[in-house]
Amino acid sequence: MSPTYELIYWPSIPGRGEFIRLVLEEAGVEYKDNAVVDADVALKEVMAHIDASDTGDANNPPILAPPILRHGDLLISQTPNILLYIASRHGLAPSDGPGFYHLNELALTALDGLSNEAHDTHHPIAVGDYYEDQKEESKRRAADYVKNRLPKFIGYFERVIKGKKSGDGPWLYGGNLTYADLVLFHCVDGLRYAFPKAVGKLESSGEYSNVFKLYQAVKDRPRIKEYLGSKRRQPYSMGLYRHYPELDDV
Amino acid sequence: MSPTYELIYWPSIPGRGEFIRLVLEEAGVEYKDNAVVDADVALKEVMAHIDASDTGDANNPPILAPPILRHGDLLISQTPNILLYIASRHGLAPSDGPGFYHLNELALTALDGLSNEAHDTHHPIAVGDYYEDQKEESKRRAADYVKNRLPKFIGYFERVIKGKKSGDGPWLYGGNLTYADLVLFHCVDGLRYAFPKAVGKLESSGEYSNVFKLYQAVKDRPRIKEYLGSKRRQPYSMGLYRHYPELDDV
Repeated sequence: MSPTYELIYWPSIPGRGEFIRLVLEEAGVEYKDNAVVDADVALKEVMAHIDASDTGDANNPPILAPPILRHGDLLISQTPNILLYIASRHGLAPSDGPGFYHLNELALTALDGLSNEAHDTHHPIAVGDYYEDQKEESKRRAADYVKNRLPKFIGYFERVIKGKKSGDGPWLYGGNLTYADLVLFHCVDGLRYAFPKAVGKLESSGEYSNVFKLYQAVKDRPRIKEYLGSKRRQPYSMGLYRHYPELDDV
Repeated sequence: MSPTYELIYWPSIPGRGEFIRLVLEEAGVEYKDNAVVDADVALKEVMAHIDASDTGDANNPPILAPPILRHGDLLISQTPNILLYIASRHGLAPSDGPGFYHLNELALTALDGLSNEAHDTHHPIAVGDYYEDQKEESKRRAADYVKNRLPKFIGYFERVIKGKKSGDGPWLYGGNLTYADLVLFHCVDGLRYAFPKAVGKLESSGEYSNVFKLYQAVKDRPRIKEYLGSKRRQPYSMGLYRHYPELDDV
């Protein structure tokens, strides 16, 4: 029997942990998530792992930042790395061969352009400082993001779906849902929250209809639907995706 | 017989392609690199792959950005993805198990904090605009980088080496050189070029001596030494790592 997965992440935001939750939920596997169950415990767990005196344990190097996954003796970090590990064990990615690397490429690209860069729109200068202390720079960065980067990345994924040479259905790669679809789903969902006007324009242009079809198809998956309606799904707040009206397509 | 690796990347800068070159050089495998051999051909190759009308081919999805690796029918992008593919095929990473994921974690962390964030010090607002048009913001971002981020990440890798529970030698993981060491080597090398004063201070503090020992140990590897002295190694210029004296520890 495989040990239970444990997600170790900041409480009270979906954050980067959300990409991992969605894969675990769609895979239908049990997991422990203190961020949802007990915020104090979750905070202590994260702080212990990222403490500057931590040197890891007998089986694992130390961790720089969450999300962190524990699975038996294994402890790993880095969102795309954790996704690759879980997805390839539960039929949401092949365990090797071209598909393994193609999906890692698609996930890394979505996380770069639609998650990390979205975060940097409200923290363009210093991740450790408040948004309010970098608000003017945020306006400049968000304007570029909405005008240039967002359509570039959404357009890329539109092209990936449209150009698919094998496999039917709304998915990015082949005929079945993979973890790359879940990653893109959550990016679009977070971006809709953060930039409703900008994403609304992209949607109503009709130029990216395959991306929005995929978004809806993921949302309609029975396990995802159940999850999104549950208390395990935390609301957006002051995390990765933030809604500042002054940054949205102004 | 395995087909020849082809690196498809921008000519005239080491850029993100350099991480891949170092792994191919240390592995001692033959590869084709038009960026070094014929800049015009390299530029055309890159432009064809990233064109907004490209939809990939029968075996591969389209590519958003270089570096790109062709290996027979396989075409993949994303630096950490290409590194994982090559390294696990040539003894610079295990092909599965904990080590595969630990090394991916270490490589992703180095690329995040010591490569992508170093790039953002000279492009904090818009990757498509000139440095000169975001110079004031660059000064603010670089000041935070040098003060907070650089010591945080270099300190993390010091902790990884110091805390190693198995394997002798100067390396990050176990007793043998892995591709994570090559990634860290090139990050430190690029940072020394970009921020000589700031990195000099870290080095002379003595607090990060294991990181600088690893740097030297990679530099002394026979194949790396030969490569660094060859014409295949391109000088730093206006790429990922740039030297602007006004951004260096001022």
